[in-house]
Amino acid sequence: MKELRVGLIGCGFMGRTHSNAHRRVNNFFQLGRKSVLKAICDTNAEKAQAFAETWGYERVETDWRKLMEAEDIDLIDICTPNFAHAEIAIAAAKAGKMIICEKPLARSVAEVEPMVEAVEAAGVPNLVSFNYRRVPAITLAKQLIDEGRIGKVFHFRANFLQDWTISADVPQGGDALWRLDVKAAGSGVTGDLLAHNIDTALYLNGAITRVVAKTETFVKERLHTETGKVEPVGIDDACLFIAEFANGSLGLFEATRYARGHKALKTFEVNGADGSLKFDLEEMEYLDYFQYKGTESHVRGWQRIHVTNGEHPYMGRYWVPGLVIGYEHSFVNALADFIESLETGKKVQPDFRCGLQTQKVCEAVLTSAKTGAWVETGVTL
Amino acid sequence: MKELRVGLIGCGFMGRTHSNAHRRVNNFFQLGRKSVLKAICDTNAEKAQAFAETWGYERVETDWRKLMEAEDIDLIDICTPNFAHAEIAIAAAKAGKMIICEKPLARSVAEVEPMVEAVEAAGVPNLVSFNYRRVPAITLAKQLIDEGRIGKVFHFRANFLQDWTISADVPQGGDALWRLDVKAAGSGVTGDLLAHNIDTALYLNGAITRVVAKTETFVKERLHTETGKVEPVGIDDACLFIAEFANGSLGLFEATRYARGHKALKTFEVNGADGSLKFDLEEMEYLDYFQYKGTESHVRGWQRIHVTNGEHPYMGRYWVPGLVIGYEHSFVNALADFIESLETGKKVQPDFRCGLQTQKVCEAVLTSAKTGAWVETGVTL
Amino acid sequence: MKELRVGLIGCGFMGRTHSNAHRRVNNFFQLGRKSVLKAICDTNAEKAQAFAETWGYERVETDWRKLMEAEDIDLIDICTPNFAHAEIAIAAAKAGKMIICEKPLARSVAEVEPMVEAVEAAGVPNLVSFNYRRVPAITLAKQLIDEGRIGKVFHFRANFLQDWTISADVPQGGDALWRLDVKAAGSGVTGDLLAHNIDTALYLNGAITRVVAKTETFVKERLHTETGKVEPVGIDDACLFIAEFANGSLGLFEATRYARGHKALKTFEVNGADGSLKFDLEEMEYLDYFQYKGTESHVRGWQRIHVTNGEHPYMGRYWVPGLVIGYEHSFVNALADFIESLETGKKVQPDFRCGLQTQKVCEAVLTSAKTGAWVETGVTL
Amino acid sequence: MKELRVGLIGCGFMGRTHSNAHRRVNNFFQLGRKSVLKAICDTNAEKAQAFAETWGYERVETDWRKLMEAEDIDLIDICTPNFAHAEIAIAAAKAGKMIICEKPLARSVAEVEPMVEAVEAAGVPNLVSFNYRRVPAITLAKQLIDEGRIGKVFHFRANFLQDWTISADVPQGGDALWRLDVKAAGSGVTGDLLAHNIDTALYLNGAITRVVAKTETFVKERLHTETGKVEPVGIDDACLFIAEFANGSLGLFEATRYARGHKALKTFEVNGADGSLKFDLEEMEYLDYFQYKGTESHVRGWQRIHVTNGEHPYMGRYWVPGLVIGYEHSFVNALADFIESLETGKKVQPDFRCGLQTQKVCEAVLTSAKTGAWVETGVTL
Repeated sequence: MKELRVGLIGCGFMGRTHSNAHRRVNNFFQLGRKSVLKAICDTNAEKAQAFAETWGYERVETDWRKLMEAEDIDLIDICTPNFAHAEIAIAAAKAGKMIICEKPLARSVAEVEPMVEAVEAAGVPNLVSFNYRRVPAITLAKQLIDEGRIGKVFHFRANFLQDWTISADVPQGGDALWRLDVKAAGSGVTGDLLAHNIDTALYLNGAITRVVAKTETFVKERLHTETGKVEPVGIDDACLFIAEFANGSLGLFEATRYARGHKALKTFEVNGADGSLKFDLEEMEYLDYFQYKGTESHVRGWQRIHVTNGEHPYMGRYWVPGLVIGYEHSFVNALADFIESLETGKKVQPDFRCGLQTQKVCEAVLTSAKTGAWVETGVTL
Repeated sequence: MKELRVGLIGCGFMGRTHSNAHRRVNNFFQLGRKSVLKAICDTNAEKAQAFAETWGYERVETDWRKLMEAEDIDLIDICTPNFAHAEIAIAAAKAGKMIICEKPLARSVAEVEPMVEAVEAAGVPNLVSFNYRRVPAITLAKQLIDEGRIGKVFHFRANFLQDWTISADVPQGGDALWRLDVKAAGSGVTGDLLAHNIDTALYLNGAITRVVAKTETFVKERLHTETGKVEPVGIDDACLFIAEFANGSLGLFEATRYARGHKALKTFEVNGADGSLKFDLEEMEYLDYFQYKGTESHVRGWQRIHVTNGEHPYMGRYWVPGLVIGYEHSFVNALADFIESLETGKKVQPDFRCGLQTQKVCEAVLTSAKTGAWVETGVTL
Repeated sequence: MKELRVGLIGCGFMGRTHSNAHRRVNNFFQLGRKSVLKAICDTNAEKAQAFAETWGYERVETDWRKLMEAEDIDLIDICTPNFAHAEIAIAAAKAGKMIICEKPLARSVAEVEPMVEAVEAAGVPNLVSFNYRRVPAITLAKQLIDEGRIGKVFHFRANFLQDWTISADVPQGGDALWRLDVKAAGSGVTGDLLAHNIDTALYLNGAITRVVAKTETFVKERLHTETGKVEPVGIDDACLFIAEFANGSLGLFEATRYARGHKALKTFEVNGADGSLKFDLEEMEYLDYFQYKGTESHVRGWQRIHVTNGEHPYMGRYWVPGLVIGYEHSFVNALADFIESLETGKKVQPDFRCGLQTQKVCEAVLTSAKTGAWVETGVTL
Repeated sequence: MKELRVGLIGCGFMGRTHSNAHRRVNNFFQLGRKSVLKAICDTNAEKAQAFAETWGYERVETDWRKLMEAEDIDLIDICTPNFAHAEIAIAAAKAGKMIICEKPLARSVAEVEPMVEAVEAAGVPNLVSFNYRRVPAITLAKQLIDEGRIGKVFHFRANFLQDWTISADVPQGGDALWRLDVKAAGSGVTGDLLAHNIDTALYLNGAITRVVAKTETFVKERLHTETGKVEPVGIDDACLFIAEFANGSLGLFEATRYARGHKALKTFEVNGADGSLKFDLEEMEYLDYFQYKGTESHVRGWQRIHVTNGEHPYMGRYWVPGLVIGYEHSFVNALADFIESLETGKKVQPDFRCGLQTQKVCEAVLTSAKTGAWVETGVTL
């Protein structure tokens, strides 16, 4: 079988989820290419070596530029902190490599635009890793909307609630905590959490045209692990915004790392004239569906669809009805779609251009939070 | 308007729920008769006096025989402990009074049979207060079954779980705790809790024909509040049984007062070829319905019907969709049906004969628990 | 016992809930005064007559001014559409009557301010009927916050979602649908639904200082039942706003009548450093509590408190643990507190001055929705 | 690193779950041995070949005896239908191979006893694949019980409800449907589903001493895929039993494939004096815990523990708090424990002797179902 030879950069949490996807995709999907873990790259050689042993990479690199030159690498998989995405992705495109890039694409629209130009100029397959589109329940939500079951949409609301930075003792920066360091991350919950919800919203409900937002940084200073000093916190700890969608519906978004009791409560709900849908990542095996059209009023109620049947998206690949898959399988499913697209030539979404739209909404949100005024997003889908 | 003149016996918890029903029924239902609280009777005169003031009874009696002779009483409402039901009910029937009697009808089949004979001989309207049939969600369950939505039934299971007698310090006997005294109550959870679930089962799934059961008394001795001595506990603390229904389905029943974390978890679930239904009294505003027939598999799921719409049983009488009623309204609804039946002449269920069937199942259960063998119930519906 | 002689104005839905409260309060609460239903007033004499018979009012009036002159009326209970509140309340205050007024107090801050002045000048007991403060689960939430269980608050979010006006065929105006007529109601969901959530927020989380809002009217024209013509819709069908609280926390509010699948989904969630609380009116027997402080991490989880124990607010007055009360009891509880305050002299909240604060937030919200800018509320608690 | 060289027999559903565990265990657990997929064996050569390619087995066999002779095989992993377990396991033990065997160990106690003797005589490490003990929520339940949080146990109840054989058109026998063929499976839901619940019960609540049971076969005849004829159905479609535990608590068990709306609803609930625990496989990320001891009554409620924290069993090996794992990871976790035990020499449970106890309960249940009488299990733990 043809091989898809992978060079993956970054041995953090996302490096693990992507490596796992490469290791598993051919066990569950019949595909034209077999993913092969050629090289792992991390600036920390020791960490990279251990990672290679755990996940079965053939070799280790500490300079990502080596991967660009390597002839035995087809795909660059970018799992570094945000600040490094743009440079690597542009180099990879120039080297003619396919690219999978963790989200958000980069720290700003200004950083992302040349990335999009680069991949489009090079004509290389590219994917941004908004993995949640491939949670079966979310894919099913898209299918039900496309089947016309929701009708004219009035409302879309989404939360992403966490609670892991409430303590002022959590430091910022470094391998584990770069997400709290604005220089590495670009923003706080807006890029880390809201970006996921915005991507889901664009996927399910189309373009967001205008926003008004509020951000807050509850803990103003934190120890920086790299400098060893207490330094101002530059990220947003929480971000709330109201949105208008192109289809006339209203959006309400909130993300925070200060919602005690929630670990990864990514939710959405969409309300249409003919039905509604609801999802919560902490119990990702369910999609809740309120079917109005075609039902009798005395038996109408929210249906809890346990999304584990063979006819549900991706689930025919796994076990039997009733048996759940987990978080990691969203990456497996996305990779399967990507590999399949290499054979069919049919583009898979969200590509970099699509990722740029989410970046535009994030940037409009952050701008509005500063000015207090409504801001146009400029999103075009 | 015509009056329904009430003499109620027993100022305990059930006296309150029945009094409340009489006070409220004409506020919500357009009926041919108006319930009027004529007399309250309790052996404790002081308690009866206070009760009369709270609930608006016109007079107080301490000897229930007075009510039988009274010409201004149409209906005897029996809310005493179980041991007194039979004598009062038979006297009331002989006096030509209508009767509402708390459940279980009495302590044994032997006690109940003459009660049935008496009301049938006298031809007086009679009702046993299995109030849960008139919880709107349960009435709706019956309606959905009658609509043919469940199809051939395979399973019926029901729990009634409480946790209030776990401590060995809870005494037995007396006004508040006669339910723990086998002489007053006849049995423990079998008559108190399982009787409710059996009545619901007969209502929804037809006759129970055979049972095998197990009972347990976890706390063997308790202080008796009347004797002041520690005495053996004669009641069953927990009771479990397997049942066969006449329709070929299997039943599983459990009741206990030793299920930590449950206060009044009366549940049932019925599984049929074409659908299933589920209910839980602690969130009684819902009926869960799994609709198999006529649905598409990719959207199938348990529907949580929030039973608060105008078209749901009884709910058109109360508020607006989404706003819940409570436990007490099951008594109001039952009383409304009873009063209506006086006008229409159409018998309302469960009457004493129906209550006898539940008593037969209870007795078969207790017998099986003693012998360890399967026991025929002799139920005829 | 002393009497509290009631003259109630308005035979609509709210007239029913208040009448029910008067009829029941003395059955459940030991109070120094007994509520007596003296007079019902409605401009529609026939309707008032039927209402009097159902609820047991002694007499009927069609001109509310008669009640002001009546010596046998102690309390004016205002259940009319919003437009009539101010005039009646001011007249009642001048006549020295106690006042209970449905929410919102009136259509605008300009209408409400003289109402507050009038009751304060007259020194009459006054209450605005934000009944949800007396849902036991919400009262318990307040208690837990006052016990210091939540700690420093970061987030407060609240929804009030309904779906009953999605069809463009629903008309506006008239007895049943004055809530859709801006002249009668003052606003749409802002005064009808958000006002409830704002009152709950002020109660639990203190003053809201600034807001930015978005409103939408999805159906632009509806038949007006009084004019018989299709007329523009002046109300807001949906309203979303972001808020800042005086305590530094962020608020997020949404109300709509276009959320298919929700009938009366009034929710709130508050997230503090030490714990969180969550509530949903459609299952109002529960309060969800995440206890962080004082718990071990491996057993930590959201606790579903079934708010039906004797030690829970108000619940000792009703049945036994596990047995739920309903929507209507929030009015009973509020009335009990009001009557008790007449004896103790200790003011009961929310009084008219408190209701004014909610009105200020509503008005700031509507202003922001027009201008698109952040607006100060001017709330002082 | 040392290798654990695997020969796996049976390419069905269980072959997939075990293969997946071998492929993944070293990605997540730091262990002293690396699982290597040496040989796959199935009587169907073509199927075995495809399976080998998908999962990366080095070679294919069609006669399992070859594996016994092979020097490059350390572990025999038995994933065949039940009828073949005993012969293979005994041969493997004689060949000195380690053994992992799917559950139930075999079709009867008579078949299982020589298996236990064989592995004990040979002194080979052995494990029966009751994978659910390693669902993190169930392992956590065991931990909480061992911490003394539940106290004296009164009740244990467990369901395993499915709905996939309701249609009479489902045939019996063959690769996919041998579970419906009594010759291949030994029994129906008793061995397939109840065995899991019995193992969980023995794990959490100790020995079951006596049972009384009822079985039913709803569909009496089905097409047999091997004979092409309609033949009597020999398995139990549903099985219910009441149990006594050695610790004095009462058990209630039910399994069926006729519970419309349930796909794999494996549940348990245990009620003790000091607390209760509840689990449902369809939302396996949760353990519900009612903590009585050490909590205040006004905040007491069922805690939904989202079992995804680093300190929860096994979860530190996977992702971050809030992100769920799935069904398949229970096999990975079990395999990790097994491999670890090879290093530590500390036996891992459930071994064959433990699996025999579950078999004894199953057999007692089936006997009771035939006789209608209580049956002693003879279980010794």
